[in-house]
Amino acid sequence: MSPINSSRGYAIHDQKDYKNFKLTDYELKREQADDVTVHVECCGTCGSDHHTISGGWGPFVAPFCVTGHEIVGEVVQVGSNVKNLQVGQRVGIGAQSSSCMECKYCKNDNENYCPVAWTDTYQGKYPNGDFSQGGYSTHVRAHQQFVFPLPEGLRSVDAASMLCAGVTSYSPLNRHNIGKGSKVGVVGLGGLGHYAVLFAKALGAEVVVFSHSERKKEDALKMGADEFVITNKGFEEKYKMSLDIIVCTSSSSSLPLNEFITTLDVGKHFVFVGMPEDEWPSLTSQAMAPNGAFVGSSHIGCRTEILKMLDLAVEKNVKPWITTRPMKEAAQSIEDVETGKARYRTILLQDIDREVQA
Amino acid sequence: MSPINSSRGYAIHDQKDYKNFKLTDYELKREQADDVTVHVECCGTCGSDHHTISGGWGPFVAPFCVTGHEIVGEVVQVGSNVKNLQVGQRVGIGAQSSSCMECKYCKNDNENYCPVAWTDTYQGKYPNGDFSQGGYSTHVRAHQQFVFPLPEGLRSVDAASMLCAGVTSYSPLNRHNIGKGSKVGVVGLGGLGHYAVLFAKALGAEVVVFSHSERKKEDALKMGADEFVITNKGFEEKYKMSLDIIVCTSSSSSLPLNEFITTLDVGKHFVFVGMPEDEWPSLTSQAMAPNGAFVGSSHIGCRTEILKMLDLAVEKNVKPWITTRPMKEAAQSIEDVETGKARYRTILLQDIDREVQA
Repeated sequence: MSPINSSRGYAIHDQKDYKNFKLTDYELKREQADDVTVHVECCGTCGSDHHTISGGWGPFVAPFCVTGHEIVGEVVQVGSNVKNLQVGQRVGIGAQSSSCMECKYCKNDNENYCPVAWTDTYQGKYPNGDFSQGGYSTHVRAHQQFVFPLPEGLRSVDAASMLCAGVTSYSPLNRHNIGKGSKVGVVGLGGLGHYAVLFAKALGAEVVVFSHSERKKEDALKMGADEFVITNKGFEEKYKMSLDIIVCTSSSSSLPLNEFITTLDVGKHFVFVGMPEDEWPSLTSQAMAPNGAFVGSSHIGCRTEILKMLDLAVEKNVKPWITTRPMKEAAQSIEDVETGKARYRTILLQDIDREVQA
Repeated sequence: MSPINSSRGYAIHDQKDYKNFKLTDYELKREQADDVTVHVECCGTCGSDHHTISGGWGPFVAPFCVTGHEIVGEVVQVGSNVKNLQVGQRVGIGAQSSSCMECKYCKNDNENYCPVAWTDTYQGKYPNGDFSQGGYSTHVRAHQQFVFPLPEGLRSVDAASMLCAGVTSYSPLNRHNIGKGSKVGVVGLGGLGHYAVLFAKALGAEVVVFSHSERKKEDALKMGADEFVITNKGFEEKYKMSLDIIVCTSSSSSLPLNEFITTLDVGKHFVFVGMPEDEWPSLTSQAMAPNGAFVGSSHIGCRTEILKMLDLAVEKNVKPWITTRPMKEAAQSIEDVETGKARYRTILLQDIDREVQA
């Protein structure tokens, strides 16, 4: 069998026409010893896909863009350094496909913050100039550090969106030691928010979902939320200094951030896990001092967190709320993200001819 | 001897004329079983004094204001519940004089964040309606929880400003586990900043002082700072993701906050310890995500931290940089704060007639 070095994917070529996916053939990044090549089985649609193709996060890095970084597939080729993954194995790939592997962050479970050679799974540029392209495609290639064996108990369509949305919500819960006895606030119930609820519950915490409307109340409670709160005037009073963390998945500029801050216990954290394009509401020391709370952001998760999360998902039978579509309906999937219609993640199923080997 | 229930202090009666201190007689708060009455020996001048009397933090709570919450003095009277402090003992009082003592924060070393009955040492209002007045005076009364025995090895004039400025800078270092091997950034070298340097060094950390001008370089290095950095364009590059905490004592709106954020290690904290009157520069998730850092504020410290700090000060021979003045020069001391001339804390020495007993 000749080596696999190319892929065929649904690509956006023009950010002004960002729902016009065109089937496009392209070369994968040049293979290195640590690379794993995966044939895509399915791929989730993430808010990042929309931000990227619509230009919200700036112009394309590569000449075109194949989105998708919630990928499940089968290993079809491995580089000479790859010892722990075999051809035929089912694996996942998330939003990151490489890092420098040398810096202190890469060595202390913070490779998701590597400042040297962070490479996105799509629209990433490798040090050698090659581009990465994502999982709305037949094949994806990534460094073995960012390719995760999937436990048997997890269906591919359920695992897919855990690899970005899941771990993005799980990582702050993990890093802030959320568990039994903790009280977690979740702001916004979309793809990320629904995972924040599911994983916080799986960790044994009490969960309060905050939303600006009653629309998703029933869903939140079905997911296991203990309380659902509409952020009307004065909503924060009942929760004064009671929450151990707030995981916020909402856009930021219109958020009652100063009110939310008052609901945090002393020294606790309000964590934006999405990547809204707008600025945070303004903050003052006066508003922040009464409970010494903190506001910050978080960026996906590291390998050890992804593996821990996958094990937790099996152990606690965490089931994401997903719908599936064939990959050719990518434009519709993006539109569902854009309009907030996705309930709560769309997983695109492989439908491209598998025979694209060079 | 008749009981002591009144005081004489230098008071501001009009926020529009906020350097016009008038010697004023007044009743202390009504004594309760946990109260300790202290004859003032000396009292530091804090930025809070200026913010309060000039109206920057809003109108007075009480009819007039005797500032001063960095108080050292001698116990002259104790309530019936006070077991661990004796008349004649040398003690300190900081910025807080009471709290509810019942809530979970009061019970877990977070009484400095008590949301139920936090009472400032001056311009505080007790549940019974009485007002607190501060240490530019002969006598101050506070709940025993907020009256600290001073170790012998510490001079009164050195201890005074530790009780607010000192612990305000020490508390975040303590709560974020700063010690040997840590790298601490200090932004702004005033009263608080100089304590951040002294205590970070006493804890064994490496210290980088950031300032907008070279003016205080020599002082910073004499205090023990390992590096002094002028915040010119690009200053942050050398420190990318290297600091374990930044203690910021500067005013906020003109601060290169987004640049400072990039100097924090993953998940670390930028802590405003002052109470600037202005808003923080705007922040975005994009700016905060690359290192998952946090921004927040901190509010003085709790009793156990104050006691730990005082012991550390003796053990490591921490010497604040102070100047002293007679208390009648309070207006000049306030002006030195206002113009940034204080190097680095002014301690007012008792000069009022001691005989003001009722």
